[in-house]
Amino acid sequence: MSTILDQLDQSLADRRHGDADTSYVAGLHQRGLNKILEKVGEESVETILAARDAEHGDDQARQALISETADLWFHSLVMLSHLGLDHRSVLEELARRQGISGLEEKASRTDG
Amino acid sequence: MSTILDQLDQSLADRRHGDADTSYVAGLHQRGLNKILEKVGEESVETILAARDAEHGDDQARQALISETADLWFHSLVMLSHLGLDHRSVLEELARRQGISGLEEKASRTDG
Amino acid sequence: MSTILDQLDQSLADRRHGDADTSYVAGLHQRGLNKILEKVGEESVETILAARDAEHGDDQARQALISETADLWFHSLVMLSHLGLDHRSVLEELARRQGISGLEEKASRTDG
Amino acid sequence: MSTILDQLDQSLADRRHGDADTSYVAGLHQRGLNKILEKVGEESVETILAARDAEHGDDQARQALISETADLWFHSLVMLSHLGLDHRSVLEELARRQGISGLEEKASRTDG
Repeated sequence: MSTILDQLDQSLADRRHGDADTSYVAGLHQRGLNKILEKVGEESVETILAARDAEHGDDQARQALISETADLWFHSLVMLSHLGLDHRSVLEELARRQGISGLEEKASRTDG
Repeated sequence: MSTILDQLDQSLADRRHGDADTSYVAGLHQRGLNKILEKVGEESVETILAARDAEHGDDQARQALISETADLWFHSLVMLSHLGLDHRSVLEELARRQGISGLEEKASRTDG
Repeated sequence: MSTILDQLDQSLADRRHGDADTSYVAGLHQRGLNKILEKVGEESVETILAARDAEHGDDQARQALISETADLWFHSLVMLSHLGLDHRSVLEELARRQGISGLEEKASRTDG
Repeated sequence: MSTILDQLDQSLADRRHGDADTSYVAGLHQRGLNKILEKVGEESVETILAARDAEHGDDQARQALISETADLWFHSLVMLSHLGLDHRSVLEELARRQGISGLEEKASRTDG
């Protein structure tokens, strides 16, 4: 599944300087960091509300939570892209905290 | 890099019913969904502030943003775990939006 | 200045069951608590970003912060109204923390 | 009830340069704008969660919502104070939107 994050980062980089009239991502970048951060904030609140709905909810409520969490991660990837970063730095930080060095991580994937 | 998310999800599942006195994650689950969602909200605000600091900041400011985004993703994984979900459903949703089916995604990884 | 909050609460109560096609407030109530809480969340993020802009900003940036804070308070009043509460309970709580009883508060206003 | 906001603003101004070891408000100012904004964000999320709990909740849940809303307003007053503003500018903005000029507002209070 990692390749989806790689592909997303590539896609976000490609679209960053695209046509703001036709690309949602290009439009966000053009409107600037505050607009991107407003979206991160909005999606985090919608994720929180969807999680409350999913707690005692049905499959539809659980799918809605998955969709909102995807929105939250997506806009945090746009934020990283806007600042010249990508998802790998975040996964490396998570790996470091788990006691898995980035090198071991890479090796384990290459070997796999 | 995908394996870090797989490992994290496994680690979160293992710790879910652990000793709340020694495990931060077990403690969060024991305190309940609201406490987990408070953390998601806190980390999203800290991510937003760190992004503002990183915009014209140095390497330390950029590292702080990576760390806050890792906190945000980590606590959203705890939220998913609390509700019986994991990161794969979110990546599948992101893949679906990119026009990549989960099956193709899996095949491309197996082939790679 | 207290009368503005009294008037706002009265206005919000009047509009609660108004025509959702013509009244923004009636529309919010009709869409339900989650929609109102999304607005509280959005306005709090916009307030936070406006405060960062105002810190080293000009009069326009300061006016924008005042406007966003007004949006945040307004939507929290709509939230209270939706749940059958109003601003007085919040001010009484703030007064209580300051060591001023609601009765003394009322007396001081009546005397003034 | 307006006098509580006047008294709070006065109290916040007095404590702004107080002893950070003994005054919570002085400590917030000393730690800087980001720390104050983190609190605004935290309290907005806690307000949102408390509102969900209050929707079908008892008196205790409603009192908890009042308390969280008071926390949110309190920390937004600290934010305004940190930037040299106070609650009157926000109430004037709310009055302006209601079509009540500040002058009429003041007159109505003076007359009352």
